[in-house]
Amino acid sequence: MLAGMSETTNGHDFKALRKAALNLSLMGDDERSSMLMRMADGLDAARERIFEANRADIAEAEKKGLSDALMHRLVLNESKLSGALDSVRAVAKLPCPVGRVVEKRLLDEGLVLEKRTYPIGVIGMVFEARPDALIQIVSLAIKSANGIVLKGGSEASRTNETLVDIIRQTLGGAPFMMLLSSHRDVDTMLSMEGDVDLIIPRGSNSFVRYCMEHTHIPVMGHADGICCVYVDESADIETAVRVATDSKVQYPAACNAVETVLVHEKAASAFLPRFKKALDEYSVLIHADERTLEYIPLGNNVVKATEEDFHTEYLSMQLAIKIVSSLDEAIRHIAAHSSHHTDAIITQDERSKAVFFNSVDSADVFANCSTRFADGFRFGLGAEVGISTSKLHARGPVGLDGLTTTKWLLDGNGQRVSDYSGPDARHFIHEDLPL
Amino acid sequence: MLAGMSETTNGHDFKALRKAALNLSLMGDDERSSMLMRMADGLDAARERIFEANRADIAEAEKKGLSDALMHRLVLNESKLSGALDSVRAVAKLPCPVGRVVEKRLLDEGLVLEKRTYPIGVIGMVFEARPDALIQIVSLAIKSANGIVLKGGSEASRTNETLVDIIRQTLGGAPFMMLLSSHRDVDTMLSMEGDVDLIIPRGSNSFVRYCMEHTHIPVMGHADGICCVYVDESADIETAVRVATDSKVQYPAACNAVETVLVHEKAASAFLPRFKKALDEYSVLIHADERTLEYIPLGNNVVKATEEDFHTEYLSMQLAIKIVSSLDEAIRHIAAHSSHHTDAIITQDERSKAVFFNSVDSADVFANCSTRFADGFRFGLGAEVGISTSKLHARGPVGLDGLTTTKWLLDGNGQRVSDYSGPDARHFIHEDLPL
Repeated sequence: MLAGMSETTNGHDFKALRKAALNLSLMGDDERSSMLMRMADGLDAARERIFEANRADIAEAEKKGLSDALMHRLVLNESKLSGALDSVRAVAKLPCPVGRVVEKRLLDEGLVLEKRTYPIGVIGMVFEARPDALIQIVSLAIKSANGIVLKGGSEASRTNETLVDIIRQTLGGAPFMMLLSSHRDVDTMLSMEGDVDLIIPRGSNSFVRYCMEHTHIPVMGHADGICCVYVDESADIETAVRVATDSKVQYPAACNAVETVLVHEKAASAFLPRFKKALDEYSVLIHADERTLEYIPLGNNVVKATEEDFHTEYLSMQLAIKIVSSLDEAIRHIAAHSSHHTDAIITQDERSKAVFFNSVDSADVFANCSTRFADGFRFGLGAEVGISTSKLHARGPVGLDGLTTTKWLLDGNGQRVSDYSGPDARHFIHEDLPL
Repeated sequence: MLAGMSETTNGHDFKALRKAALNLSLMGDDERSSMLMRMADGLDAARERIFEANRADIAEAEKKGLSDALMHRLVLNESKLSGALDSVRAVAKLPCPVGRVVEKRLLDEGLVLEKRTYPIGVIGMVFEARPDALIQIVSLAIKSANGIVLKGGSEASRTNETLVDIIRQTLGGAPFMMLLSSHRDVDTMLSMEGDVDLIIPRGSNSFVRYCMEHTHIPVMGHADGICCVYVDESADIETAVRVATDSKVQYPAACNAVETVLVHEKAASAFLPRFKKALDEYSVLIHADERTLEYIPLGNNVVKATEEDFHTEYLSMQLAIKIVSSLDEAIRHIAAHSSHHTDAIITQDERSKAVFFNSVDSADVFANCSTRFADGFRFGLGAEVGISTSKLHARGPVGLDGLTTTKWLLDGNGQRVSDYSGPDARHFIHEDLPL
């Protein structure tokens, strides 16, 4: 389909990448896991070289006057590198995600159907300033036997190139891995239908949205993270205050932090003053709707909310509060305003919980616990590629399984379809076999 | 995001459709299944009205001079309608595809995570002339509790409108179902990101490709069906002749029929003359590559193949044959030419089979049986929405499961993430629970 495009004008050879990915998939899991251990050791032994490259990136970024947040992400220090290497070694020890039989059925005597997991093929990963993300992403790609096209933030280019160079040296080439450098390369990658099977962008909302709108390759990820906590009429007020506060303050810049708290009118007088007190300890700015202002007055970290506030991902110590008249109104608010990432109910009523679980159409729907639990590690998935808000393929925190596809393997001994049609047709057995 | 677009200029109310789909999902499976039985009975009782509408469509099509193939698809006669109604009743009896717990894990005492299946939401289905497809699609949508936007072929508009009218009368409204009529409506649907969650096009290659290239909504389906059968060096020749012949002649217009037969050079002299004899019974036209012509000469249903032939989906009593020097060459040919739908090896060598299974990156990979087995019913999936050649979400024959997504439900009693971090952090248990 795009036969002529396998080699780009920049000289990137996508055909060779796919072949290398296939070779990676034909190895055993023990071989791939041993590559990961060697990769961790190789990076460990080259710490000084990595830090030197990172210092050069930082010096350049300081000259350019990068924001504090970006600088913070750009830094690769001892503890961040150690964390990344620990994670590589942990990924090596996870169960093999490919070659797993997920369905098995006897269609007829001697005709056995299996559905098995396989690598997706070539994954395009675009990530922001954090160079430790590169290490994590490469380890997930190797473990899942996928080819990987990497495009990191240009601020981190020296660090990223050094990391890739060390990994290549350690593994003796690593042809299943390609590092793109220029900004134009992102557009090249987005146009590589047939060469790249899946794009995973990590970065700002606007960047993720740009990727989704400029490619016909499937994109897995999330743009916004507007999460809601709804305090039901029957909520235990202490639980509501604990959970809603944690959902905001534990790490407000995360996509799974709460941005809007909805409060049932019958819980408002008990909940709101106590919640306000808890938030004051962290100087959280409250955008309160009109009815909320009856319980927590304007001034002292309280401003009046506009409609815009309920569509805003603050990513900081701010949140919006709205009083609703019913569970149904809360569910309708979430349908219209949440980004379908993570939404929680605080309730002691089993029926309200069931209605919320079944009616809220989000990747993660929680009851009586913090939205911040929406995370691959906390969910017990081992490692996480990211969080998907799309409904197809993988939804919510995505682990190694999300980097696999399946194939149907049918093993026979000469069966024809013509024998299963017409007046003397053989009948299928269709008996599920143990996996 | 597209809030203002829920009601189209044509007056279709997508917001009401989504709400109706949610209501459908909140019913029990018994209620949805009983709707299906009522729908089948209602259509059964209105046979004469349906045939009358269909006769009007046929009369109009005859005036316009539609092709025989299209006319054949357009006709809805007693036996086709009976088959469609049998299928509706069979779908009613299938296990419920939604609300199924597919993962369950104890994260900590009192903190239980479940991954459960849910309907995708609203599915846009575009299908060609066959009006019986409408009945099947509506039944799958109801069983999986999805809203459905239907766009049938304009040739069948009277029949489709009558079917929808009868279904609405029988079910007392059926607001989860919308029938589009104009050609412009397809483009409207393709632009309905946020209102339609998944597009499933069934029709010509060019139409499916058009859909894929003109929407940012995920599309599930297949454009081409170029399937290969490879006759290995170690093939049992009788098996090879039986299977390769069935793969072509049993129903040559199907997407899972073989278009290219690859023959190992060491099997050529034993296989090719016998294969030619078997194909001659069905007057199959062979496009033979140069080396093949050494075994089956030009003339008498044999023409010389061009490179184009190995990229062609004949959908008729024609196929291409090529001699290869190795299993590896066969695999490379398939990678470059097949549409990654269904490819088969004929071999008695376990190692060749394993290499073929692992290296061929297609939805269905078969050994020693006909490519025509690639079908939801034959696979034991009950009903089939279609066959997907994309690697994400669902691959190969897609049953009701492909119309579901998942949600992560986390049920706690006040847990905060802050308790799981810092020096006195609680540790996760992460114990998988029985489903």
